[in-house]
Amino acid sequence: MTLGKIVKELVCTIKDPSLRSGKIFVVQLLNLDLTEKDRYVIALENKLGLGPGDIVLLVTGSGARKVDGNTDLPIDCAVTAKVENFNIEEKYLY
Amino acid sequence: MTLGKIVKELVCTIKDPSLRSGKIFVVQLLNLDLTEKDRYVIALENKLGLGPGDIVLLVTGSGARKVDGNTDLPIDCAVTAKVENFNIEEKYLY
Amino acid sequence: MTLGKIVKELVCTIKDPSLRSGKIFVVQLLNLDLTEKDRYVIALENKLGLGPGDIVLLVTGSGARKVDGNTDLPIDCAVTAKVENFNIEEKYLY
Amino acid sequence: MTLGKIVKELVCTIKDPSLRSGKIFVVQLLNLDLTEKDRYVIALENKLGLGPGDIVLLVTGSGARKVDGNTDLPIDCAVTAKVENFNIEEKYLY
Amino acid sequence: MTLGKIVKELVCTIKDPSLRSGKIFVVQLLNLDLTEKDRYVIALENKLGLGPGDIVLLVTGSGARKVDGNTDLPIDCAVTAKVENFNIEEKYLY
Repeated sequence: MTLGKIVKELVCTIKDPSLRSGKIFVVQLLNLDLTEKDRYVIALENKLGLGPGDIVLLVTGSGARKVDGNTDLPIDCAVTAKVENFNIEEKYLY
Repeated sequence: MTLGKIVKELVCTIKDPSLRSGKIFVVQLLNLDLTEKDRYVIALENKLGLGPGDIVLLVTGSGARKVDGNTDLPIDCAVTAKVENFNIEEKYLY
Repeated sequence: MTLGKIVKELVCTIKDPSLRSGKIFVVQLLNLDLTEKDRYVIALENKLGLGPGDIVLLVTGSGARKVDGNTDLPIDCAVTAKVENFNIEEKYLY
Repeated sequence: MTLGKIVKELVCTIKDPSLRSGKIFVVQLLNLDLTEKDRYVIALENKLGLGPGDIVLLVTGSGARKVDGNTDLPIDCAVTAKVENFNIEEKYLY
Repeated sequence: MTLGKIVKELVCTIKDPSLRSGKIFVVQLLNLDLTEKDRYVIALENKLGLGPGDIVLLVTGSGARKVDGNTDLPIDCAVTAKVENFNIEEKYLY
């Protein structure tokens, strides 16, 4: 999986009939310090209620169709969680 | 998924027998400002009626076979929607 | 999918028992102007009768096993068509 | 598969309901001399009990869901083993 | 598929229980002239009896689990054949 930041929604009038639920978002990929990479993906967000500005965990490939509500959808990337922060265990820091 | 612009159709006389429906298009990949990247893919467009000049949403991998009409086709990339425009929510802009 | 040019056949004596049919070819990847990229793949060609010098359409990933005769083979890339030429619709040219 | 070093845990409060077990780790990818690459992935570690500082073997794609306990999870990368050392056979060294 | 040269074996004591058979090898990727690329993968070799120094054909993704003995293993890359040499047809040479 990788980290991204939701930027904006894609508006599609002509689309595959199975793409009825969820929102199709442009997501900017992030470095580990949460600065933006010069790369984007298009990802489906279905039932988590997330949107522009949220930092999210993305799953790619067939795993995107294992997210709740995404079964059999014609997608290859989906939002699977909202990232709150990092938990660095002390044994690694010292 | 990613964004692309349909450029032209590929003509194949000798081909896998399952590739009877749909058109096989050369698609130029796009940056978010819709300028063209120096990369292309070959994608199947089956039932949406799209063609050269259209800006489209592409799905890769096994997801390409989840598009309506593409079940079990020997493909790894398909057109899944026509992109109209972007919807930038205000909370992200200011 | 992507475009390639078949270069030569790979000879393997010790191999997985399921790789009995078809030929395993070295395929040079192509730019859209059909010049060769500095990248190759190894692809299976099973029932189309194509060989060195042919410009072909390649399918990667699980889609390679959807080509006629390739079901359940341990492959990730297959030849799926011979490319004849491009059909550029006039509305795109002018 | 590839080699990585577990760095820290990702904390997600809003997430897909299936992501209840295991830990979601940031993993830095490694060169063969075990120096860190400038690339990371996010991977699930479920039943092995590994954590920050451990050098691990990562499996990507649908294979990540073949790890014990990961069936049907919405993931594309998982920890599958802890790497102890390399066994270089002598016939290759001399 | 792609070409690689087996370098050394990876030793893992803590690992997924399904990884009992076969050897987990570090494989250096090769250019077509068989010089080594600056990239490696970790691949499973199960029933072919190959080892360090052998030039091999690698299959990635779900295809790695189609190699004999690899069904349902948590892997994304496997050795599928030993490469002997190339067969360049004369029509391509002149």
